[in-house]
Amino acid sequence: MMRREITGFSNPTVKFLRSLREKKHRKAAGKFMAEGLRLLTDARESGHVPETLVMASGRDPHPLIDALEDAVSAAGGEIIETSPDILEKITGKSNPQAVAGVFDEFDTSLSAVDRTSAKIWLVAQELRDPGNLGTMLRTGDAVGAGGLILIDDCADPFSVEAVRASMGAIFTQTVARARWDEFLPWLRGGQGQLVAASLRDAVPYRGAPYSAPCFVLVGNESQGLPEAYEAACDLRVTMPMRGRADSLNAAVAGAVLAYEVLETLEA
Amino acid sequence: MMRREITGFSNPTVKFLRSLREKKHRKAAGKFMAEGLRLLTDARESGHVPETLVMASGRDPHPLIDALEDAVSAAGGEIIETSPDILEKITGKSNPQAVAGVFDEFDTSLSAVDRTSAKIWLVAQELRDPGNLGTMLRTGDAVGAGGLILIDDCADPFSVEAVRASMGAIFTQTVARARWDEFLPWLRGGQGQLVAASLRDAVPYRGAPYSAPCFVLVGNESQGLPEAYEAACDLRVTMPMRGRADSLNAAVAGAVLAYEVLETLEA
Repeated sequence: MMRREITGFSNPTVKFLRSLREKKHRKAAGKFMAEGLRLLTDARESGHVPETLVMASGRDPHPLIDALEDAVSAAGGEIIETSPDILEKITGKSNPQAVAGVFDEFDTSLSAVDRTSAKIWLVAQELRDPGNLGTMLRTGDAVGAGGLILIDDCADPFSVEAVRASMGAIFTQTVARARWDEFLPWLRGGQGQLVAASLRDAVPYRGAPYSAPCFVLVGNESQGLPEAYEAACDLRVTMPMRGRADSLNAAVAGAVLAYEVLETLEA
Repeated sequence: MMRREITGFSNPTVKFLRSLREKKHRKAAGKFMAEGLRLLTDARESGHVPETLVMASGRDPHPLIDALEDAVSAAGGEIIETSPDILEKITGKSNPQAVAGVFDEFDTSLSAVDRTSAKIWLVAQELRDPGNLGTMLRTGDAVGAGGLILIDDCADPFSVEAVRASMGAIFTQTVARARWDEFLPWLRGGQGQLVAASLRDAVPYRGAPYSAPCFVLVGNESQGLPEAYEAACDLRVTMPMRGRADSLNAAVAGAVLAYEVLETLEA
Protein backbone atom coordinates (compact mmCIF):
# COMPACT_ATOMS: atom_id res chain seq x y z
CA MET A 1 0.00 0.00 0.00
CA MET A 2 1.22 3.48 -0.85
CA ARG A 3 1.01 5.34 2.44
CA ARG A 4 2.67 8.66 3.08
CA GLU A 5 2.85 10.96 6.04
CA ILE A 6 2.91 14.66 5.24
CA THR A 7 4.02 17.07 7.91
CA GLY A 8 4.70 20.35 6.06
CA PHE A 9 2.15 22.97 5.08
CA SER A 10 4.17 23.83 1.98
CA ASN A 11 4.25 20.26 0.72
CA PRO A 12 3.25 20.27 -2.98
CA THR A 13 0.61 17.58 -2.38
CA VAL A 14 -1.06 19.75 0.27
CA LYS A 15 -1.03 22.66 -2.13
CA PHE A 16 -2.48 20.49 -4.88
CA LEU A 17 -5.27 19.12 -2.70
CA ARG A 18 -6.12 22.56 -1.46
CA SER A 19 -6.17 23.91 -5.01
CA LEU A 20 -9.02 21.52 -5.88
CA ARG A 21 -11.36 23.83 -4.00
CA GLU A 22 -11.10 26.17 -7.00
CA LYS A 23 -12.72 25.45 -10.33
CA LYS A 24 -9.79 26.43 -12.53
CA HIS A 25 -7.50 24.02 -10.72
CA ARG A 26 -10.07 21.22 -10.85
CA LYS A 27 -10.43 21.82 -14.56
CA ALA A 28 -6.68 21.87 -15.15
CA ALA A 29 -6.18 18.64 -13.18
CA GLY A 30 -9.39 16.93 -14.29
CA LYS A 31 -9.90 15.94 -10.65
CA PHE A 32 -12.21 16.80 -7.78
CA MET A 33 -12.38 16.24 -4.05
CA ALA A 34 -15.18 14.69 -2.00
CA GLU A 35 -15.22 14.99 1.77
CA GLY A 36 -16.75 12.97 4.55
CA LEU A 37 -16.81 9.31 5.47
CA ARG A 38 -20.43 8.89 4.45
CA LEU A 39 -19.86 10.40 1.02
CA LEU A 40 -16.69 8.39 0.42
CA THR A 41 -18.46 5.24 1.51
CA ASP A 42 -21.32 5.96 -0.90
CA ALA A 43 -18.71 6.45 -3.59
CA ARG A 44 -16.97 3.18 -2.78
CA GLU A 45 -20.23 1.26 -2.73
CA SER A 46 -21.02 2.73 -6.15
CA GLY A 47 -17.67 1.53 -7.48
CA HIS A 48 -15.80 4.83 -7.22
CA VAL A 49 -12.57 4.58 -5.26
CA PRO A 50 -10.48 7.71 -4.71
CA GLU A 51 -7.00 7.70 -6.18
CA THR A 52 -5.86 9.57 -3.08
CA LEU A 53 -7.34 9.29 0.39
CA VAL A 54 -6.42 11.92 3.01
CA MET A 55 -6.96 11.78 6.75
CA ALA A 56 -5.38 12.83 10.02
CA SER A 57 -2.74 10.56 11.46
CA GLY A 58 -3.88 8.96 14.67
CA ARG A 59 -7.49 9.16 13.57
CA ASP A 60 -9.96 7.03 15.54
CA PRO A 61 -10.29 3.59 13.96
CA HIS A 62 -13.51 2.93 12.08
CA PRO A 63 -14.58 -0.10 10.03
CA LEU A 64 -15.68 2.14 7.14
CA ILE A 65 -12.25 3.78 7.10
CA ASP A 66 -10.68 0.34 7.01
CA ALA A 67 -12.90 -0.60 4.08
CA LEU A 68 -11.92 2.60 2.27
CA GLU A 69 -8.24 2.02 2.88
CA ASP A 70 -8.52 -1.53 1.60
CA ALA A 71 -10.31 -0.37 -1.54
CA VAL A 72 -7.77 2.38 -2.22
CA SER A 73 -4.91 -0.08 -1.73
CA ALA A 74 -6.46 -2.67 -3.97
CA ALA A 75 -6.88 -0.06 -6.71
CA GLY A 76 -3.24 1.04 -6.40
CA GLY A 77 -4.11 4.39 -4.89
CA GLU A 78 -2.36 6.43 -2.26
CA ILE A 79 -3.20 7.07 1.38
CA ILE A 80 -1.97 10.28 2.93
CA GLU A 81 -1.84 10.87 6.65
CA THR A 82 -1.24 14.32 7.93
CA SER A 83 -1.71 16.55 10.97
CA PRO A 84 -5.13 17.90 11.95
CA ASP A 85 -3.86 21.41 11.10
CA ILE A 86 -2.88 20.48 7.59
CA LEU A 87 -6.06 18.48 7.14
CA GLU A 88 -8.02 21.59 8.08
CA LYS A 89 -6.08 23.54 5.50
CA ILE A 90 -7.04 20.98 2.87
CA THR A 91 -10.70 20.47 3.72
CA GLY A 92 -11.43 23.92 5.14
CA LYS A 93 -13.03 22.26 8.16
CA SER A 94 -11.69 21.97 11.67
CA ASN A 95 -12.75 18.37 12.09
CA PRO A 96 -9.86 16.01 12.90
CA GLN A 97 -12.13 13.08 12.01
CA ALA A 98 -12.50 14.44 8.48
CA VAL A 99 -11.53 12.29 5.55
CA ALA A 100 -11.27 13.38 1.93
CA GLY A 101 -10.71 11.66 -1.36
CA VAL A 102 -9.55 12.76 -4.79
CA PHE A 103 -11.36 11.43 -7.85
CA ASP A 104 -11.06 11.83 -11.60
CA GLU A 105 -13.79 14.03 -13.00
CA PHE A 106 -16.28 11.99 -15.03
CA ASP A 107 -17.02 12.30 -18.71
CA THR A 108 -19.72 14.97 -18.94
CA SER A 109 -20.35 14.91 -22.67
CA LEU A 110 -23.83 14.08 -23.93
CA SER A 111 -22.42 10.82 -25.22
CA ALA A 112 -22.24 9.71 -21.58
CA VAL A 113 -26.05 9.79 -21.46
CA ASP A 114 -27.85 6.56 -22.29
CA ARG A 115 -31.40 7.86 -22.47
CA THR A 116 -32.90 4.39 -22.56
CA SER A 117 -31.45 3.59 -19.14
CA ALA A 118 -34.03 5.61 -17.17
CA LYS A 119 -37.56 6.97 -17.46
CA ILE A 120 -36.69 10.38 -16.03
CA TRP A 121 -33.84 12.79 -16.69
CA LEU A 122 -33.41 16.13 -15.00
CA VAL A 123 -32.23 19.08 -17.07
CA ALA A 124 -31.17 22.44 -15.64
CA GLN A 125 -30.41 25.61 -17.56
CA GLU A 126 -27.95 28.15 -16.12
CA LEU A 127 -28.34 26.79 -12.62
CA ARG A 128 -25.90 28.96 -10.71
CA ASP A 129 -26.13 27.72 -7.14
CA PRO A 130 -23.95 24.65 -6.51
CA GLY A 131 -26.22 23.70 -3.59
CA ASN A 132 -29.23 23.63 -5.90
CA LEU A 133 -27.22 21.57 -8.37
CA GLY A 134 -26.27 19.02 -5.72
CA THR A 135 -29.84 18.94 -4.45
CA MET A 136 -31.08 18.16 -7.96
CA LEU A 137 -28.61 15.27 -8.20
CA ARG A 138 -29.90 13.97 -4.87
CA THR A 139 -33.51 14.30 -6.05
CA GLY A 140 -32.60 12.55 -9.28
CA ASP A 141 -31.25 9.61 -7.32
CA ALA A 142 -34.47 9.49 -5.27
CA VAL A 143 -36.83 9.47 -8.27
CA GLY A 144 -34.71 6.94 -10.14
CA ALA A 145 -33.61 9.46 -12.76
CA GLY A 146 -30.71 8.61 -15.02
CA GLY A 147 -28.91 11.84 -14.35
CA LEU A 148 -28.71 15.58 -14.66
CA ILE A 149 -28.00 17.45 -17.89
CA LEU A 150 -26.60 20.94 -17.36
CA ILE A 151 -27.41 23.42 -20.10
CA ASP A 152 -25.38 26.56 -20.89
CA ASP A 153 -23.44 28.13 -17.99
CA CYS A 154 -24.20 26.21 -14.82
CA ALA A 155 -22.37 25.87 -11.52
CA ASP A 156 -19.63 23.26 -11.48
CA PRO A 157 -21.02 19.84 -10.50
CA PHE A 158 -17.57 18.92 -9.13
CA SER A 159 -17.41 21.82 -6.67
CA VAL A 160 -17.17 20.90 -3.01
CA GLU A 161 -20.60 22.43 -2.35
CA ALA A 162 -22.35 20.57 -5.18
CA VAL A 163 -20.70 17.26 -4.29
CA ARG A 164 -21.68 17.71 -0.64
CA ALA A 165 -25.30 18.68 -1.40
CA SER A 166 -25.61 15.68 -3.72
CA MET A 167 -25.17 13.40 -0.70
CA GLY A 168 -23.33 10.90 -2.86
CA ALA A 169 -25.56 11.16 -5.93
CA ILE A 170 -22.65 12.69 -7.88
CA PHE A 171 -21.34 9.10 -7.92
CA THR A 172 -24.60 7.44 -9.01
CA GLN A 173 -26.19 9.95 -11.39
CA THR A 174 -24.86 10.62 -14.88
CA VAL A 175 -23.90 14.28 -15.28
CA ALA A 176 -23.67 15.88 -18.69
CA ARG A 177 -22.96 19.43 -19.79
CA ALA A 178 -24.00 20.96 -23.11
CA ARG A 179 -25.00 24.17 -24.81
CA TRP A 180 -28.68 24.40 -25.67
CA ASP A 181 -27.86 24.23 -29.39
CA GLU A 182 -26.05 20.92 -28.84
CA PHE A 183 -28.64 19.54 -26.45
CA LEU A 184 -31.75 20.10 -28.54
CA PRO A 185 -30.50 18.28 -31.69
CA TRP A 186 -29.18 15.49 -29.47
CA LEU A 187 -32.58 15.18 -27.78
CA ARG A 188 -34.45 15.20 -31.08
CA GLY A 189 -32.12 12.53 -32.41
CA GLY A 190 -33.95 9.94 -30.32
CA GLN A 191 -36.94 9.35 -28.10
CA GLY A 192 -37.65 11.83 -25.35
CA GLN A 193 -40.28 14.24 -24.10
CA LEU A 194 -39.04 17.64 -22.97
CA VAL A 195 -41.16 19.12 -20.17
CA ALA A 196 -40.75 22.56 -18.64
CA ALA A 197 -42.22 24.12 -15.54
CA SER A 198 -43.62 27.27 -17.09
CA LEU A 199 -46.20 30.00 -16.75
CA ARG A 200 -46.70 30.39 -20.49
CA ASP A 201 -49.25 28.32 -22.39
CA ALA A 202 -49.02 25.61 -19.73
CA VAL A 203 -51.29 22.82 -18.51
CA PRO A 204 -51.62 21.81 -14.85
CA TYR A 205 -48.66 19.65 -13.81
CA ARG A 206 -51.02 17.21 -12.12
CA GLY A 207 -52.31 14.67 -14.59
CA ALA A 208 -50.32 16.03 -17.53
CA PRO A 209 -49.49 13.47 -20.27
CA TYR A 210 -45.90 12.64 -19.30
CA SER A 211 -44.11 9.96 -21.28
CA ALA A 212 -40.79 8.19 -20.89
CA PRO A 213 -38.02 9.05 -21.25
CA CYS A 214 -39.19 12.33 -19.76
CA PHE A 215 -36.67 15.19 -19.60
CA VAL A 216 -37.70 17.61 -16.82
CA LEU A 217 -36.29 21.07 -17.54
CA VAL A 218 -35.89 23.86 -14.99
CA GLY A 219 -34.44 27.29 -15.57
CA ASN A 220 -32.08 29.74 -13.97
CA GLU A 221 -32.74 30.76 -10.35
CA SER A 222 -33.56 34.38 -11.12
CA GLN A 223 -34.45 34.50 -14.82
CA GLY A 224 -36.25 31.23 -15.33
CA LEU A 225 -36.11 29.69 -18.80
CA PRO A 226 -35.69 31.76 -21.97
CA GLU A 227 -38.95 31.92 -23.89
CA ALA A 228 -37.44 30.16 -26.91
CA TYR A 229 -36.39 27.23 -24.72
CA GLU A 230 -39.89 26.90 -23.32
CA ALA A 231 -41.33 27.07 -26.82
CA ALA A 232 -39.12 24.15 -27.87
CA CYS A 233 -40.59 21.91 -25.15
CA ASP A 234 -43.12 19.19 -25.87
CA LEU A 235 -45.10 20.03 -22.77
CA ARG A 236 -45.29 23.07 -20.52
CA VAL A 237 -46.79 22.51 -17.11
CA THR A 238 -47.61 24.82 -14.25
CA MET A 239 -47.79 24.23 -10.51
CA PRO A 240 -50.32 25.93 -8.25
CA MET A 241 -49.03 29.23 -6.87
CA ARG A 242 -51.31 30.31 -4.07
CA GLY A 243 -49.20 33.13 -2.69
CA ARG A 244 -47.61 36.36 -3.81
CA ALA A 245 -44.74 34.81 -5.73
CA ASP A 246 -44.94 33.18 -9.12
CA SER A 247 -42.07 30.74 -8.80
CA LEU A 248 -40.41 28.15 -6.62
CA ASN A 249 -36.76 27.51 -5.83
CA ALA A 250 -35.37 25.78 -8.95
CA ALA A 251 -34.43 22.56 -7.15
CA VAL A 252 -37.83 22.47 -5.43
CA ALA A 253 -39.71 23.00 -8.70
CA GLY A 254 -37.68 20.22 -10.32
CA ALA A 255 -38.43 17.86 -7.44
CA VAL A 256 -42.17 18.48 -7.26
CA LEU A 257 -42.39 17.98 -11.02
CA ALA A 258 -40.10 14.94 -11.06
CA TYR A 259 -42.20 13.21 -8.38
CA GLU A 260 -45.35 13.89 -10.40
CA VAL A 261 -43.69 12.40 -13.48
CA LEU A 262 -42.60 9.37 -11.45
CA GLU A 263 -46.12 8.81 -10.12
CA THR A 264 -47.58 9.12 -13.63
CA LEU A 265 -45.07 6.84 -15.33
CA GLU A 266 -45.40 4.18 -12.64
CA ALA A 267 -49.19 4.36 -12.35
CA MET B 1 -38.28 63.20 5.18
CA MET B 2 -35.34 62.11 7.32
CA ARG B 3 -32.49 61.81 4.88
CA ARG B 4 -28.87 61.55 5.90
CA GLU B 5 -25.65 61.23 3.99
CA ILE B 6 -22.99 59.13 5.65
CA THR B 7 -19.42 59.40 4.45
CA GLY B 8 -17.32 57.73 7.13
CA PHE B 9 -16.62 54.02 7.54
CA SER B 10 -16.48 54.41 11.31
CA ASN B 11 -19.89 56.05 11.54
CA PRO B 12 -21.91 54.31 14.27
CA THR B 13 -24.86 53.76 11.93
CA VAL B 14 -22.61 51.94 9.46
CA LYS B 15 -21.29 49.80 12.28
CA PHE B 16 -24.81 49.07 13.46
CA LEU B 17 -26.08 48.11 10.00
CA ARG B 18 -23.07 45.91 9.41
CA SER B 19 -23.57 44.25 12.79
CA LEU B 20 -27.00 43.00 11.69
CA ARG B 21 -25.24 40.35 9.62
CA GLU B 22 -24.54 38.56 12.91
CA LYS B 23 -27.21 36.78 14.89
CA LYS B 24 -26.23 38.05 18.31
CA HIS B 25 -26.47 41.64 17.15
CA ARG B 26 -29.80 41.04 15.45
CA LYS B 27 -31.10 39.48 18.62
CA ALA B 28 -29.84 42.34 20.79
CA ALA B 29 -31.39 44.95 18.50
CA GLY B 30 -34.52 43.00 17.61
CA LYS B 31 -33.94 44.02 14.01
CA PHE B 32 -32.90 42.45 10.73
CA MET B 33 -31.79 43.56 7.29
CA ALA B 34 -33.23 42.65 3.91
CA GLU B 35 -31.34 43.40 0.73
CA GLY B 36 -32.36 43.96 -2.86
CA LEU B 37 -34.93 46.10 -4.60
CA ARG B 38 -37.16 43.15 -5.43
CA LEU B 39 -37.23 41.92 -1.83
CA LEU B 40 -37.86 45.38 -0.42
CA THR B 41 -40.63 45.91 -2.95
CA ASP B 42 -42.22 42.61 -1.95
CA ALA B 43 -41.97 43.77 1.65
CA ARG B 44 -43.57 47.12 0.88
CA GLU B 45 -46.39 45.52 -1.09
CA SER B 46 -47.00 43.23 1.88
CA GLY B 47 -47.26 46.22 4.19
CA HIS B 48 -43.74 46.05 5.64
CA VAL B 49 -41.82 49.29 5.32
CA PRO B 50 -38.22 49.47 6.54
CA GLU B 51 -37.51 51.90 9.33
CA THR B 52 -34.19 52.62 7.64
CA LEU B 53 -33.47 52.46 3.93
CA VAL B 54 -29.85 52.45 2.76
CA MET B 55 -28.53 53.06 -0.73
CA ALA B 56 -25.62 54.62 -2.58
CA SER B 57 -25.79 58.34 -3.25
CA GLY B 58 -26.11 59.08 -6.94
CA ARG B 59 -27.85 55.78 -7.52
CA ASP B 60 -29.68 55.43 -10.85
CA PRO B 61 -33.29 56.56 -10.51
CA HIS B 62 -35.91 53.82 -10.46
CA PRO B 63 -39.67 54.04 -9.94
CA LEU B 64 -39.57 51.24 -7.37
CA ILE B 65 -36.90 53.12 -5.40
CA ASP B 66 -39.10 56.20 -5.51
CA ALA B 67 -42.02 54.16 -4.21
CA LEU B 68 -39.84 52.78 -1.40
CA GLU B 69 -38.60 56.23 -0.45
CA ASP B 70 -42.14 57.57 -0.37
CA ALA B 71 -43.29 54.70 1.84
CA VAL B 72 -40.36 55.11 4.23
CA SER B 73 -40.99 58.86 4.46
CA ALA B 74 -44.70 58.41 5.03
CA ALA B 75 -43.95 55.99 7.86
CA GLY B 76 -41.51 58.41 9.48
CA GLY B 77 -38.47 56.29 8.67
CA GLU B 78 -34.99 57.31 7.70
CA ILE B 79 -33.22 57.22 4.34
CA ILE B 80 -29.46 56.93 4.37
CA GLU B 81 -27.29 57.66 1.37
CA THR B 82 -23.70 56.63 1.41
CA SER B 83 -20.75 55.85 -0.85
CA PRO B 84 -20.60 52.61 -2.87
CA ASP B 85 -17.62 51.55 -0.69
CA ILE B 86 -19.53 51.94 2.55
CA LEU B 87 -22.60 50.32 1.02
CA GLU B 88 -20.43 47.33 0.12
CA LYS B 89 -19.23 47.18 3.70
CA ILE B 90 -22.84 47.11 4.91
CA THR B 91 -24.30 44.64 2.42
CA GLY B 92 -21.19 42.57 1.76
CA LYS B 93 -21.83 42.95 -1.97
CA SER B 94 -19.99 45.06 -4.48
CA ASN B 95 -23.13 46.25 -6.22
CA PRO B 96 -23.53 50.03 -6.23
CA GLN B 97 -27.20 49.54 -7.22
CA ALA B 98 -27.80 47.62 -4.00
CA VAL B 99 -30.43 48.79 -1.58
CA ALA B 100 -31.02 47.50 1.93
CA GLY B 101 -33.66 48.02 4.56
CA VAL B 102 -33.80 47.50 8.31
CA PHE B 103 -36.94 45.96 9.81
CA ASP B 104 -38.12 45.06 13.27
CA GLU B 105 -38.03 41.31 13.82
CA PHE B 106 -41.54 39.87 13.96
CA ASP B 107 -43.20 38.19 16.91
CA THR B 108 -42.20 34.53 16.59
CA SER B 109 -44.12 33.10 19.51
CA LEU B 110 -46.71 30.42 18.87
CA SER B 111 -49.36 32.96 19.79
CA ALA B 112 -48.58 34.63 16.43
CA VAL B 113 -49.97 31.53 14.70
CA ASP B 114 -53.68 31.59 13.81
CA ARG B 115 -54.09 27.99 12.75
CA THR B 116 -57.53 28.59 11.28
CA SER B 117 -56.11 31.05 8.76
CA ALA B 118 -54.63 28.39 6.45
CA LYS B 119 -55.05 24.75 5.49
CA ILE B 120 -51.33 24.00 5.49
CA TRP B 121 -48.55 24.86 7.91
CA LEU B 122 -44.93 23.87 7.49
CA VAL B 123 -42.99 22.72 10.54
CA ALA B 124 -39.23 22.16 10.62
CA GLN B 125 -37.20 20.61 13.39
CA GLU B 126 -33.56 21.62 13.86
CA LEU B 127 -33.28 22.92 10.34
CA ARG B 128 -29.72 24.21 10.31
CA ASP B 129 -29.27 25.59 6.82
CA PRO B 130 -30.61 29.14 6.44
CA GLY B 131 -30.98 28.55 2.70
CA ASN B 132 -33.25 25.57 3.36
CA LEU B 133 -35.21 27.65 5.85
CA GLY B 134 -35.74 30.46 3.35
CA THR B 135 -36.66 27.95 0.65
CA MET B 136 -39.32 26.46 2.95
CA LEU B 137 -40.78 29.92 3.51
CA ARG B 138 -40.87 30.43 -0.26
CA THR B 139 -42.55 27.04 -0.74
CA GLY B 140 -45.02 27.88 2.01
CA ASP B 141 -46.01 31.03 0.16
CA ALA B 142 -46.48 29.00 -3.05
CA VAL B 143 -48.74 26.35 -1.49
CA GLY B 144 -50.76 28.93 0.41
CA ALA B 145 -49.43 27.81 3.79
CA GLY B 146 -49.97 30.04 6.79
CA GLY B 147 -46.36 29.95 7.82
CA LEU B 148 -43.38 28.04 9.11
CA ILE B 149 -43.00 26.81 12.68
CA LEU B 150 -39.38 26.21 13.71
CA ILE B 151 -38.90 23.54 16.35
CA ASP B 152 -35.90 23.31 18.70
CA ASP B 153 -32.60 24.77 17.44
CA CYS B 154 -33.07 26.00 13.91
CA ALA B 155 -31.18 28.48 11.77
CA ASP B 156 -32.20 32.10 12.28
CA PRO B 157 -35.09 33.04 9.96
CA PHE B 158 -33.88 36.66 10.07
CA SER B 159 -30.40 35.87 8.76
CA VAL B 160 -29.45 37.50 5.48
CA GLU B 161 -29.27 34.08 3.78
CA ALA B 162 -32.70 32.95 4.97
CA VAL B 163 -34.33 36.25 4.09
CA ARG B 164 -32.76 36.15 0.63
CA ALA B 165 -33.74 32.52 -0.05
CA SER B 166 -37.30 33.27 1.06
CA MET B 167 -37.64 35.60 -1.94
CA GLY B 168 -39.87 37.87 0.11
CA ALA B 169 -41.90 35.16 1.83
CA ILE B 170 -40.36 36.20 5.18
CA PHE B 171 -42.78 39.14 4.90
CA THR B 172 -45.87 37.13 4.00
CA GLN B 173 -45.51 33.89 5.97
CA THR B 174 -45.97 33.72 9.72
CA VAL B 175 -42.81 32.46 11.42
CA ALA B 176 -42.91 30.92 14.88
CA ARG B 177 -40.23 29.34 17.03
CA ALA B 178 -40.86 26.85 19.82
CA ARG B 179 -39.38 23.92 21.66
CA TRP B 180 -41.04 20.59 20.87
CA ASP B 181 -42.47 20.40 24.38
CA GLU B 182 -44.19 23.74 23.87
CA PHE B 183 -45.29 23.00 20.33
CA LEU B 184 -46.97 19.65 20.91
CA PRO B 185 -49.32 20.83 23.73
CA TRP B 186 -50.10 23.94 21.68
CA LEU B 187 -50.95 21.80 18.65
CA ARG B 188 -53.10 19.44 20.69
CA GLY B 189 -54.94 22.40 22.17
CA GLY B 190 -56.84 22.82 18.92
CA GLN B 191 -57.54 21.27 15.55
CA GLY B 192 -54.62 20.08 13.51
CA GLN B 193 -53.15 17.00 11.88
CA LEU B 194 -49.41 16.48 12.30
CA VAL B 195 -47.82 14.70 9.33
CA ALA B 196 -44.21 13.60 9.05
CA ALA B 197 -42.18 12.37 6.13
CA SER B 198 -40.86 9.17 7.65
CA LEU B 199 -39.51 5.74 6.91
CA ARG B 200 -41.00 4.16 10.03
CA ASP B 201 -44.50 2.71 10.02
CA ALA B 202 -45.48 5.00 7.15
CA VAL B 203 -48.10 4.95 4.40
CA PRO B 204 -47.46 6.17 0.84
CA TYR B 205 -47.59 9.98 0.70
CA ARG B 206 -49.74 9.78 -2.42
CA GLY B 207 -53.39 9.46 -1.47
CA ALA B 208 -52.78 9.59 2.28
CA PRO B 209 -55.71 10.94 4.35
CA TYR B 210 -54.55 14.52 4.88
CA SER B 211 -56.90 16.88 6.70
CA ALA B 212 -56.84 20.62 7.36
CA PRO B 213 -55.21 22.30 9.11
CA CYS B 214 -52.36 20.01 8.12
CA PHE B 215 -48.98 20.55 9.80
CA VAL B 216 -46.22 19.15 7.57
CA LEU B 217 -43.18 18.26 9.68
CA VAL B 218 -39.66 17.75 8.35
CA GLY B 219 -36.57 16.95 10.36
CA ASN B 220 -32.96 17.98 10.61
CA GLU B 221 -30.82 17.83 7.46
CA SER B 222 -28.55 15.04 8.67
CA GLN B 223 -30.40 13.32 11.50
CA GLY B 224 -34.01 13.47 10.34
CA LEU B 225 -36.70 13.51 13.01
CA PRO B 226 -36.24 11.95 16.46
CA GLU B 227 -38.22 8.74 16.71
CA ALA B 228 -40.36 10.14 19.55
CA TYR B 229 -41.37 13.10 17.39
CA GLU B 230 -42.41 10.80 14.56
CA ALA B 231 -44.35 8.66 16.99
CA ALA B 232 -46.31 11.72 18.13
CA CYS B 233 -47.50 12.41 14.59
CA ASP B 234 -51.03 11.63 13.42
CA LEU B 235 -49.79 10.37 10.10
CA ARG B 236 -46.44 9.17 8.84
CA VAL B 237 -45.96 9.13 5.09
CA THR B 238 -43.19 7.96 2.84
CA MET B 239 -42.11 9.09 -0.61
CA PRO B 240 -40.74 6.70 -3.24
CA MET B 241 -36.97 6.33 -3.03
CA ARG B 242 -35.78 4.62 -6.18
CA GLY B 243 -32.06 5.19 -5.73
CA ARG B 244 -29.30 4.49 -3.25
CA ALA B 245 -30.26 7.16 -0.74
CA ASP B 246 -33.14 6.98 1.70
CA SER B 247 -33.83 10.68 2.06
CA LEU B 248 -34.31 13.96 0.23
CA ASN B 249 -33.05 17.44 1.00
CA ALA B 250 -35.27 18.69 3.84
CA ALA B 251 -36.72 21.63 1.89
CA VAL B 252 -37.38 19.36 -1.09
CA ALA B 253 -39.13 16.74 1.04
CA GLY B 254 -41.28 19.43 2.62
CA ALA B 255 -42.22 20.82 -0.79
CA VAL B 256 -43.11 17.51 -2.41
CA LEU B 257 -45.23 16.64 0.61
CA ALA B 258 -46.84 20.09 0.85
CA TYR B 259 -47.88 19.99 -2.79
CA GLU B 260 -49.43 16.58 -2.26
CA VAL B 261 -51.33 17.92 0.76
CA LEU B 262 -52.49 20.91 -1.28
CA GLU B 263 -53.75 18.70 -4.10
CA THR B 264 -55.59 16.47 -1.63
CA LEU B 265 -57.19 19.26 0.36
CA GLU B 266 -58.31 21.09 -2.78
CA ALA B 267 -59.51 18.01 -4.66
